[in-house]
Amino acid sequence: MATLCRPAIAVPEHVITLDETLDLARALHADHPQLGLALRLIENTGVRTRHLVQPIEETLRHPGFTVRNAVYEREAKRRVPEVVERALGHAELAARDVDLILYVSCTGFMMPSLTAWLINAMGFRSDTRQLPIAQLGCAAGGAAVNRAHDFCRAYPGANVLIVACEFCSLCYQPTDIGVGSLLSNGLFGDAIAAVVLRGRGGTGVHLERNGSHLVPDTENWISYGVKDTGFHFQLDKRVPGTMEMLAPALRALAVEHAWDVSGLGFYIVHAGGPRILDDLCHFLNLEPAAFRFSRATLTERGNIASAVVFDALARMFEEGGVEDGTQGLIAGFGPGITAEISLGSWVGAPLEAMVPRRSRAIDTAELTIAHRTAPLPRPAGSTITE
Amino acid sequence: MATLCRPAIAVPEHVITLDETLDLARALHADHPQLGLALRLIENTGVRTRHLVQPIEETLRHPGFTVRNAVYEREAKRRVPEVVERALGHAELAARDVDLILYVSCTGFMMPSLTAWLINAMGFRSDTRQLPIAQLGCAAGGAAVNRAHDFCRAYPGANVLIVACEFCSLCYQPTDIGVGSLLSNGLFGDAIAAVVLRGRGGTGVHLERNGSHLVPDTENWISYGVKDTGFHFQLDKRVPGTMEMLAPALRALAVEHAWDVSGLGFYIVHAGGPRILDDLCHFLNLEPAAFRFSRATLTERGNIASAVVFDALARMFEEGGVEDGTQGLIAGFGPGITAEISLGSWVGAPLEAMVPRRSRAIDTAELTIAHRTAPLPRPAGSTITE
Repeated sequence: MATLCRPAIAVPEHVITLDETLDLARALHADHPQLGLALRLIENTGVRTRHLVQPIEETLRHPGFTVRNAVYEREAKRRVPEVVERALGHAELAARDVDLILYVSCTGFMMPSLTAWLINAMGFRSDTRQLPIAQLGCAAGGAAVNRAHDFCRAYPGANVLIVACEFCSLCYQPTDIGVGSLLSNGLFGDAIAAVVLRGRGGTGVHLERNGSHLVPDTENWISYGVKDTGFHFQLDKRVPGTMEMLAPALRALAVEHAWDVSGLGFYIVHAGGPRILDDLCHFLNLEPAAFRFSRATLTERGNIASAVVFDALARMFEEGGVEDGTQGLIAGFGPGITAEISLGSWVGAPLEAMVPRRSRAIDTAELTIAHRTAPLPRPAGSTITE
Repeated sequence: MATLCRPAIAVPEHVITLDETLDLARALHADHPQLGLALRLIENTGVRTRHLVQPIEETLRHPGFTVRNAVYEREAKRRVPEVVERALGHAELAARDVDLILYVSCTGFMMPSLTAWLINAMGFRSDTRQLPIAQLGCAAGGAAVNRAHDFCRAYPGANVLIVACEFCSLCYQPTDIGVGSLLSNGLFGDAIAAVVLRGRGGTGVHLERNGSHLVPDTENWISYGVKDTGFHFQLDKRVPGTMEMLAPALRALAVEHAWDVSGLGFYIVHAGGPRILDDLCHFLNLEPAAFRFSRATLTERGNIASAVVFDALARMFEEGGVEDGTQGLIAGFGPGITAEISLGSWVGAPLEAMVPRRSRAIDTAELTIAHRTAPLPRPAGSTITE
């Protein structure tokens, strides 16, 4: 009986708007033969604003992989603890209650991963299991939910902390000027998410079944070129059409669970781009409003990789959650092409009663303010109430 | 009732001996002020031979991270499928029987990881779960066993394929000339291991309990510098002494299971270096012979990172296994400093009856021959009998 609690989200303080993105593309690629196409593609993403860990001037410089990765480590250590504390607070747990930390991030690389540092800095138990995943890209959000679910199935009552730390702007590569790269430069944003899967108790999504699906022979469609200059995101133009291939997998998992995928009460899916959401509506026979949480994430923050599903889920909590027993679906999509799908139903007290409406404004304010100063890790077990 | 079956191991065809390593160190670092110390440290490792994916001349050149990582991908795709087929054969399973592929490797980086390619190339089911781990270093062998165990606890009857692919020689950095780096250059070797955890049936180690332990505030003792030139292995001189800190964690897990860690029938541990094994003997009050499998791996192949525990386990199988019900321990050690510990007991038919002694020679021959030619993936379900 594992319940995915309310996620905590933070986005960095540096903001770039769609207009600024388009102006930049025009300025940087004035002579590009396909500039018009790239501008149209960026506009069509529907992304209005994105948040970045550095000012845009610094983001556009490539100081080398050494410096880039050092920025990743510095910013992750500076920003992640506060988000983790809020997630623990949402779950009403302390650090010492956590049995597994699942850290997903594909936009920087550390060994050991941040899990070891978090355990030392935030007072997690020394026997906390560590599971860092760097190679599932945007699908890692869904994968984290599913592997956390598996862990709670294996150890009933165990608690799992999931952290998704994605600084996509640190993968900007000024020399990549294919249309796919130009589009990506206008699509991805930075964000941190943390969420607790409680083995017992809690309000949120009770996870019931999960599954994975790989679309055959598409492993080159989303990939990294791993080079002296760092990770180069490579996007095949066939990717936006993959929902036709993945929708049947979502439907099949629901059928296994004796559910109708077209009749669920909520849908929390990775918002890779607008076509992903449009096509899923079409192939699953849903109203556009079904994906309003994912669409809001895309519009306000861009594609924030593995953090998308948690940001979308946080919006459902902010809306007050759903009726007890409401059935829904969570799905991450990413390289492979892989879908990581989860089925669950809402459990617990109505959220309206628990979280007064006015707290939504407070929460939003925190998102921007919290990381203006570098937060020091708090002692284990402290929580922030909202 | 999950059983870790007989591992399959492959080492590359290029061999470097201790004498050749010492000669190289003398030639490359003739003016190094601590050459004498480095040579003594290398000699003291007890490593007699190591295997490399490229001839030593190529290994010593650094053609940049781009090329290095391309070599990693090429060699992994060329060499891993044959090892996977042998591991499936040992477990008497076909690719379609596998529910999760756990791929551990810290010496190259791909996104998507090799899991997606393996599923496509070797006929695994499209709903096979993928769990790639790149950031647990040498501890990842133990972590893979433990996360596979968790998965089989969650889904009784499920089967997990573990692949450990470590080409440590691709992390050789000619400009790193600290004593720790010189020692590492004489310590690490390349190898591939694959092993199946069968949810039901099989002969091998029935996994019963697992645990993890992080030594506080040691996350910088083993780490990667992630740079334009790739991964730079950084080894603190305090690392060889960490068994004093980890032995109590091994003992404590055994006590939780009502076992005496000093009285078990087999010990399969990561052989990071000779002091690790000597100290574990001392702190766990064991005879040196307790670690004969790990020591043989270290002597013949060097520290092959996450593959060590599987190579050592394969040697126990080659020796004929142990009596039904014999209790033992498997442990990986690595960055964090993290220990991943597993307790289990031998189950199944006596191995002597199953695998005639003469097959050991055949198996050894295969190790060298099999990857001289690039093996093509076989159709799903085919197995190699030995």
